[in-house]
Amino acid sequence: MSELSVDHLLGIKYLTKEDIALIFQTADHFKEVINRPIKKVPSLRDITIANLFFENSTRTRLSFELAEKRLSADVVNFSASSSSVTKGETLIDTVNNILSMKVDMVVMRHPNPGAGIFLSRHVNASIINAGDGAHEHPTQALLDCYSIREKLGEIEGKKVVIVGDILHSRVALSNIFALKLLGAQVKVCGPYTLIPKHIRSLGVEVEPNLKNALEWCDVANMLRVQHERMDISYFPSTREYVQLFGLNRQLLDSLNKKIVVMHPGPINRGVEITSDVADSDQAIILDQVQNGVAIRMAVIYLLASKIKQV
Amino acid sequence: MSELSVDHLLGIKYLTKEDIALIFQTADHFKEVINRPIKKVPSLRDITIANLFFENSTRTRLSFELAEKRLSADVVNFSASSSSVTKGETLIDTVNNILSMKVDMVVMRHPNPGAGIFLSRHVNASIINAGDGAHEHPTQALLDCYSIREKLGEIEGKKVVIVGDILHSRVALSNIFALKLLGAQVKVCGPYTLIPKHIRSLGVEVEPNLKNALEWCDVANMLRVQHERMDISYFPSTREYVQLFGLNRQLLDSLNKKIVVMHPGPINRGVEITSDVADSDQAIILDQVQNGVAIRMAVIYLLASKIKQV
Amino acid sequence: MSELSVDHLLGIKYLTKEDIALIFQTADHFKEVINRPIKKVPSLRDITIANLFFENSTRTRLSFELAEKRLSADVVNFSASSSSVTKGETLIDTVNNILSMKVDMVVMRHPNPGAGIFLSRHVNASIINAGDGAHEHPTQALLDCYSIREKLGEIEGKKVVIVGDILHSRVALSNIFALKLLGAQVKVCGPYTLIPKHIRSLGVEVEPNLKNALEWCDVANMLRVQHERMDISYFPSTREYVQLFGLNRQLLDSLNKKIVVMHPGPINRGVEITSDVADSDQAIILDQVQNGVAIRMAVIYLLASKIKQV
Repeated sequence: MSELSVDHLLGIKYLTKEDIALIFQTADHFKEVINRPIKKVPSLRDITIANLFFENSTRTRLSFELAEKRLSADVVNFSASSSSVTKGETLIDTVNNILSMKVDMVVMRHPNPGAGIFLSRHVNASIINAGDGAHEHPTQALLDCYSIREKLGEIEGKKVVIVGDILHSRVALSNIFALKLLGAQVKVCGPYTLIPKHIRSLGVEVEPNLKNALEWCDVANMLRVQHERMDISYFPSTREYVQLFGLNRQLLDSLNKKIVVMHPGPINRGVEITSDVADSDQAIILDQVQNGVAIRMAVIYLLASKIKQV
Repeated sequence: MSELSVDHLLGIKYLTKEDIALIFQTADHFKEVINRPIKKVPSLRDITIANLFFENSTRTRLSFELAEKRLSADVVNFSASSSSVTKGETLIDTVNNILSMKVDMVVMRHPNPGAGIFLSRHVNASIINAGDGAHEHPTQALLDCYSIREKLGEIEGKKVVIVGDILHSRVALSNIFALKLLGAQVKVCGPYTLIPKHIRSLGVEVEPNLKNALEWCDVANMLRVQHERMDISYFPSTREYVQLFGLNRQLLDSLNKKIVVMHPGPINRGVEITSDVADSDQAIILDQVQNGVAIRMAVIYLLASKIKQV
Repeated sequence: MSELSVDHLLGIKYLTKEDIALIFQTADHFKEVINRPIKKVPSLRDITIANLFFENSTRTRLSFELAEKRLSADVVNFSASSSSVTKGETLIDTVNNILSMKVDMVVMRHPNPGAGIFLSRHVNASIINAGDGAHEHPTQALLDCYSIREKLGEIEGKKVVIVGDILHSRVALSNIFALKLLGAQVKVCGPYTLIPKHIRSLGVEVEPNLKNALEWCDVANMLRVQHERMDISYFPSTREYVQLFGLNRQLLDSLNKKIVVMHPGPINRGVEITSDVADSDQAIILDQVQNGVAIRMAVIYLLASKIKQV
């Protein structure tokens, strides 16, 4: 149990329970490191990492970049807008070129589901999936579970509801895989048209009523409403969404217990959650962000250890 | 007098004379450092700084980035175009997220006046204002005053004229605050429609005639003409501007003394100043740029010292 | 022969045979370095390098950035889109401003032929031309020749054909200068309208038939088809181009020898070369990329040595 069973982090789907335990234990160590005055360790001085972002991102890119720098890795950034991609080059050619410059690890966000898996089969470097279309976003799910464990002691047996557009959400899918693997009970709640048909086959129940879902759960993970999808016909109007699936103080206070509120960010205040909820002591939204750096340091460190052994 | 009276650099308005003296003295030291073969000091190895630029900038961003790197700080860059801002996130949420990743200091340029002040009240990090709308640009004023002091020995009693669009200029406003605080006499000169009505309340005189202003002054700070504002009705045409407020060799030579010529850059050669003036030995434009790095190192170093004490 | 005869790398045109030998010998050393577990040397801790890219680029910019970081230089990046250039500043002012911040070396890509030469006459820093319009791209030619030498032992006497749009290609021109200087025989092959009229004055022969060119050569350097130029009247359609000047497996196998296939990237698979050719063991395309980092480390290191002596 001292190393990961995988050479890439492509999705939670490919991890074992032991992998996640190892990642969490390593993250515990790095979380301590980043809370020290000197937030840096010299562990990866000999590793070069390329961050390839084919989609815009702030927090994920920054979080990875900080994780890499605090491990003392050399970092190069690459974003689609300034890239050869617009010149008609294939993804494999782009990445192979970067790897020929002696890059050891690739952190990639890509609009196509499976882009990381495809790449891992064709290039000779460790790949970390930082979000591939509506498929997976494994480091987000790891940091979410890590934050629940930090708050509630453990994941096993806990009741988690994920609220919002489940159909298009890589955050939801990766969370479902991770939570189920770690023994949580999971329900999803959202507009009927935004719940995938096959969701029950993942061992997940559907609860169409938010109030009921909240009464049941220990943790509510409120997904971001993607305004850019609001024009799509199967999506309700923002106003309807807020009425049916928005979390506000009144609703939170009406429960007979204190649930934990999560959000992957960026928040639309007043849409999926109101400001008083986002800023309340039940919300662990900023803990999630902080834990994100520790989790990413752990994943990079563990994958890099496997490279160095070779 | 060994530390600043403030925890943020939001504007010259909030500094004391002693603060500026301390910044200049610290900058003297760093100016020596950046003129050595090894231009780096290990002072801030334990500090992470985020540069948040919500407006385009070359020289200010580069100057801050070099200052940070020469202090050995860890640096992450963030620009509006690739940011969550376009996804509807609030400024406080964006910055709080970045801070949760254990960032100690934020250097921010923002189009809204007061953005830095607002932020400093809501987030837990040291904020440096790198320009907030038409409000303040404190490090520019500090480097301008530092450059005058370097050239003329001291600021007290010197006569400085600021020429151009005073109304929209954060450089002008911060310079006025700093020059007055340090005991200089200040006049402004420019198109009537581009002089703020309240300017006299700042202890500044208005001199509508450039020739008269130059006869009077020791130093002329020629502001950049912002072509992007040229379509606004109260702005004269470029041709009129050049005739009335442009500084050329002939005008400079007609004075009975050698005044110092400054410009915050980027220069429109042939508009606010001609090339022969910009490249003359009376111009200290490139000294201003060089001093900018030393001043920014000083400000960052002094604010970081206060963080570390906590 | 322990230092370069030039202070800048503006074009192959300005180098001697001895300069290239010295660069290759230095690159041999750095190629060994970047294949070690620790890919970094502390050589240039005291050097600050600015990468100024006034045109989009992925591989060249990344290759330079990795070369600089592996030499431990301090690096600042500057790209046209976020620059003062759009505010009407002259190139000399932009660069002088950057240099005033104590930058020692400038790597510049610019759309105008001769931009680097112009700059080297007006600013006080070492300039490396990373591509200036249709003029030169010297590090590309150096890495191409270095890759040929690595594969075939030496350049002298070898027969090289450059295939494609010779007229607009800085890669072609720099390669011709380098190959001729090192004693190779050079032919060019491409659409009649895309061969410059003066090409024979450079000691280069024109061979309009690809099959004949390949029969003759030891090495074929297949230039990228620039789709962005495809609408220009003197350019053939892509379909015609592929038929007449595209390299495919059948054509390669019809030769009575194994030639070396090169490509400066990014590849249009199925246009200038087919996938089976690009991925075959006769292609040294990824070696070129890898050698690019070593060559750029060598050039930067040798130019920096001259700065430090001053």
